[in-house]
Amino acid sequence: MAIHAAVAGASGYAGGEVLRLLLGHPEVRIGALTAHSSAGQRLGQAQPHLPRLAGRVLAETSAETLAGHDVVFLALPHGQSAAVAERLGEDVLVVDCGADFRLEDAAEWERFYGVPHAGTWPYGLPELPGAREALRGTKRIAVPGCYPTAVSLALLPAYAAGLAEPEAVVVAASGTSGAGKAAKPHLLGSEVMGSMSPYGVGGGHRHTPEMVQNLSAAAGERVTVSFTPTLAPMPRGILATCSAKARPGVTAESLRSAYDKAFADEPFVHLLPEGQWPSTGAVTGSNAALVQVALDAAAGRIVVVGAIDNLTKGTAGGAVQSMNIALGLPEELGLPTCGVAP
Amino acid sequence: MAIHAAVAGASGYAGGEVLRLLLGHPEVRIGALTAHSSAGQRLGQAQPHLPRLAGRVLAETSAETLAGHDVVFLALPHGQSAAVAERLGEDVLVVDCGADFRLEDAAEWERFYGVPHAGTWPYGLPELPGAREALRGTKRIAVPGCYPTAVSLALLPAYAAGLAEPEAVVVAASGTSGAGKAAKPHLLGSEVMGSMSPYGVGGGHRHTPEMVQNLSAAAGERVTVSFTPTLAPMPRGILATCSAKARPGVTAESLRSAYDKAFADEPFVHLLPEGQWPSTGAVTGSNAALVQVALDAAAGRIVVVGAIDNLTKGTAGGAVQSMNIALGLPEELGLPTCGVAP
Amino acid sequence: MAIHAAVAGASGYAGGEVLRLLLGHPEVRIGALTAHSSAGQRLGQAQPHLPRLAGRVLAETSAETLAGHDVVFLALPHGQSAAVAERLGEDVLVVDCGADFRLEDAAEWERFYGVPHAGTWPYGLPELPGAREALRGTKRIAVPGCYPTAVSLALLPAYAAGLAEPEAVVVAASGTSGAGKAAKPHLLGSEVMGSMSPYGVGGGHRHTPEMVQNLSAAAGERVTVSFTPTLAPMPRGILATCSAKARPGVTAESLRSAYDKAFADEPFVHLLPEGQWPSTGAVTGSNAALVQVALDAAAGRIVVVGAIDNLTKGTAGGAVQSMNIALGLPEELGLPTCGVAP
Amino acid sequence: MAIHAAVAGASGYAGGEVLRLLLGHPEVRIGALTAHSSAGQRLGQAQPHLPRLAGRVLAETSAETLAGHDVVFLALPHGQSAAVAERLGEDVLVVDCGADFRLEDAAEWERFYGVPHAGTWPYGLPELPGAREALRGTKRIAVPGCYPTAVSLALLPAYAAGLAEPEAVVVAASGTSGAGKAAKPHLLGSEVMGSMSPYGVGGGHRHTPEMVQNLSAAAGERVTVSFTPTLAPMPRGILATCSAKARPGVTAESLRSAYDKAFADEPFVHLLPEGQWPSTGAVTGSNAALVQVALDAAAGRIVVVGAIDNLTKGTAGGAVQSMNIALGLPEELGLPTCGVAP
Repeated sequence: MAIHAAVAGASGYAGGEVLRLLLGHPEVRIGALTAHSSAGQRLGQAQPHLPRLAGRVLAETSAETLAGHDVVFLALPHGQSAAVAERLGEDVLVVDCGADFRLEDAAEWERFYGVPHAGTWPYGLPELPGAREALRGTKRIAVPGCYPTAVSLALLPAYAAGLAEPEAVVVAASGTSGAGKAAKPHLLGSEVMGSMSPYGVGGGHRHTPEMVQNLSAAAGERVTVSFTPTLAPMPRGILATCSAKARPGVTAESLRSAYDKAFADEPFVHLLPEGQWPSTGAVTGSNAALVQVALDAAAGRIVVVGAIDNLTKGTAGGAVQSMNIALGLPEELGLPTCGVAP
Repeated sequence: MAIHAAVAGASGYAGGEVLRLLLGHPEVRIGALTAHSSAGQRLGQAQPHLPRLAGRVLAETSAETLAGHDVVFLALPHGQSAAVAERLGEDVLVVDCGADFRLEDAAEWERFYGVPHAGTWPYGLPELPGAREALRGTKRIAVPGCYPTAVSLALLPAYAAGLAEPEAVVVAASGTSGAGKAAKPHLLGSEVMGSMSPYGVGGGHRHTPEMVQNLSAAAGERVTVSFTPTLAPMPRGILATCSAKARPGVTAESLRSAYDKAFADEPFVHLLPEGQWPSTGAVTGSNAALVQVALDAAAGRIVVVGAIDNLTKGTAGGAVQSMNIALGLPEELGLPTCGVAP
Repeated sequence: MAIHAAVAGASGYAGGEVLRLLLGHPEVRIGALTAHSSAGQRLGQAQPHLPRLAGRVLAETSAETLAGHDVVFLALPHGQSAAVAERLGEDVLVVDCGADFRLEDAAEWERFYGVPHAGTWPYGLPELPGAREALRGTKRIAVPGCYPTAVSLALLPAYAAGLAEPEAVVVAASGTSGAGKAAKPHLLGSEVMGSMSPYGVGGGHRHTPEMVQNLSAAAGERVTVSFTPTLAPMPRGILATCSAKARPGVTAESLRSAYDKAFADEPFVHLLPEGQWPSTGAVTGSNAALVQVALDAAAGRIVVVGAIDNLTKGTAGGAVQSMNIALGLPEELGLPTCGVAP
Repeated sequence: MAIHAAVAGASGYAGGEVLRLLLGHPEVRIGALTAHSSAGQRLGQAQPHLPRLAGRVLAETSAETLAGHDVVFLALPHGQSAAVAERLGEDVLVVDCGADFRLEDAAEWERFYGVPHAGTWPYGLPELPGAREALRGTKRIAVPGCYPTAVSLALLPAYAAGLAEPEAVVVAASGTSGAGKAAKPHLLGSEVMGSMSPYGVGGGHRHTPEMVQNLSAAAGERVTVSFTPTLAPMPRGILATCSAKARPGVTAESLRSAYDKAFADEPFVHLLPEGQWPSTGAVTGSNAALVQVALDAAAGRIVVVGAIDNLTKGTAGGAVQSMNIALGLPEELGLPTCGVAP
């Protein structure tokens, strides 16, 4: 019996990626597609890469148009999910690709987002300790941010094993789709091609408290994160370069062993063979995360690099992976494990 | 009962794409992987985007390593397929992604390729009139070139319906993967990013006689093709801009109607709604072809633009589609119909 | 004694390129900089690549703010130049980078632009026969469109020498800066990177009548142009692939000789050595145009490829080159002849 | 009286950029151009963006072909400069764009480069304390590495003012031209477009000891540098994100004031206005460096981002700037201060 899924925000990049994955999911039937400014248009206008849905007409996003489905994916601007979710019924699985229900600390939420905190839902990063248990059977999922996904996967083993000092430094490069589809001058192709630039420098990025939350939980103590995101001339992908001072006694072997163990049973996270480093190109369109780790003896730091596709593992793939767990389906069902490369 | 498939040339771009598609094919089990200069290495070195096969060791390409499979995909340099194929047995389906068996005219072959003609195999462009019949049950398939795929799909309806004069002008932009993985200075990222350049200008490109062959067959008379390929700063994709003088009496309506009819039942070729034009970005990683057509009244020309992914529909996807037909499987089985966009 | 120059539309791409070139011009002193929606801001916000002018404040575009200069460059949206120009005085050299005064045929203008024709000014393509004479001493210059610059340079010698039939087919790839700085969804980096797409197919592009005008003048008969522009994933550059049927008796030698002769004394147009083809990367930021020509014997067509930087030779460089001629300065003064490559 | 300059390694990226800048230098006349594998070819083959030198024939690199010039620029592979330089005479200004004479510590040199140390020359980063004095009148210049240029400019003020703890963390993204023109598979356009990847992770990059040397000199104590370089999908540019723990008492104001003061008189280094961040696109082809600084209070770190063009300020521009100082010319002579953007 098929799972009937609706997607709110189907005209955007996250919504489009959710649809691409659902089209390849053997148990899902795609129901209502909704949007706001594109409502009334055919999906083919906004998402020409999904010809099988080209003729579908976008409805206005509302609890009414989204009602009657088993699963509803929300790919809405921050702050809009709560109002929709609370009208969808407790038996509907609501998967929120936005930020509204990710943070546990209401004060942090309000400091970074400037609106009241809507609550905290089970967090859709199955690779976090305890996450799969929380996701199983849940009817509400908060999909992690794309940067926190990459950074948490990269640093969790080091913190969980007590190898790293609680001050992480992260510099991550993201493809432009992470900034969404709203037309802004600094996101024009003319501006971004051939150029790299940072933004939200100095702790201002809204994904910082989410990283702090995840890493602190793993470390069992508060971990600070100095996070600098940069915009790279590519449509997709996050390359997160993460480092922290090594605790005394950490060796290259103990480090590698901790990572080996942490990812041994993970279906989507791959510790690369020694000497091989992740590239975002290898995970384009895939739900895989590639990780490599090194000990910089001269600087006394653990350096970990993780690569994901911000729209797949970083958003829609993580969402479908968590949906699979919530519904008791095989975790990998319908999810691409190969990148489209070159 | 699974189809057992081997891939020769598994370390290159075409071979990698064949593997990506076969990994998503529900009836195929992947057997031997062979290569030449990379033989002995693990596939993960050459194809880091295929983590499920990362540990596979590449064997040396030979009839011995390729024996014992139901299907053998050849992704070899031009001129090397015949020697391998003739030793594979007549009950093995051999799918040649190279050029060796595409052309019917031995003299044309020798003029463009400079080596003796090896023969002609059933041509793996199912959308050509009569092609599906020839492919059904065959044990030998010549996969078309990437440019001829794009150009033939774009112009066939016009020639089949007798709407166009037999002198076509084609300018096509290709992603760099079309030039292969051998390291040459003019293909360096530093050279190609931010730059477009033509090559093989004036009729010299080897794909020209293949276009002439296909279009002439459709037109029932010899069609000349002035073909200029250009290298575009993108890894994948072909955008073919094709035109020919309109025959007297052709109207925008009769033109559109011919295209509508030609593609109505095609699973992978989509005539876009009026006003929407193809982009290669919409077909990245997909086996779809997007086509749009216009009549330029002032210049008296039919203008057709087609977009495909050179590695998917233009090579490996066309190969798998033809394999499906040859083996009596559903034509669309295991083939992606969505692009990875943006 | 310095030439005092003002730039209207200084916050856009054309205006920014005019400023970049004027900063390198030994005889020019930069005066008023004006804009519309950016008025009141410092130039450093809009044009961070021009640090020497970063502190300059943008004035509102008006005849008053532009008065009192020797030269005024207009880089305004189509249809706005006439109103400004008529209030600037007949002794001021007005260089219009927009389309308003390019076309001679008022009916063509109105058909393509939909507003009344403002007139025709001396045309700033010095390489056109007779153009330098018309530019010398003029106080009004209509800078050509970027596509017509590339296409006219590529095809003029063939038409002037009577070698080509009067039906040209042109497919040109342009960098995204040609579409301007206004934020539109289809120009987002996410959309354009990794993708090529056509637009204005079927004769609809406004630059078509300008090509017809130039080529017809050279040919001495009406030349039709089938023009398809495509958007390429690069910020700058135009690669124009142009062809026409060869007239009887044309040989590779007569063709090359015509081009050799046509460009022998041109300071910025270079016929490449045989076997070498133009790339847009080689002219980034340069006022040079690279051209190569071939005879496709099998198809009976002359094929010419030209490469320019759409913002330099295609707009601001052509403007400064024409200004130099108008003011009696050396034509090459202050203009870059080297590209920034790779 | 013109300065007569020769360039060894004229067919590579660094050599090509030296030539581009020398062509715009009013006091320099370009003499011998030499190469190794391209010797005998015309420069137009290797450097099509320099049409004014297209006909020049490349000589074999040797002391003989380089003799008789006032200045010789060496753009050779590491380890080859010493043999050439020692035969050039002490009255010739030798500007080495390679690494051979940059490091003061012979042991560090040998550890990172694996060959004997050739010596230490005056270091061509004029913005370093004391550097201009050492460069004035010198006949030998070691041009800094591209990464050390970006990183040193970004962090020097913090260390010189005693604001930062002596453990720096640097993640830098570089355009592909930094990897040179030798054709290697991982540098193919197909591989790098749409992808980011790290290399030399864990302290292995050869530019690390150069950063340590510069920052330690400024700090007056040994500074460690954890350096991770990444390859970005763009031909040019370095974006260096640098951070270090803030010393107690450092405020946003004291930090900004230190940077303001440090760069106040620098002709090429620009501290951006608050709220504006550097992008590499703004410095393409320019000798400018753009810097911005922030205090991340929550993480207790100083974060500085610097952007340069790796080939201009990072190599050839730094070389010409230092040459100007050595020869007693105005420091800015002939150097572009504007980027080619967009």
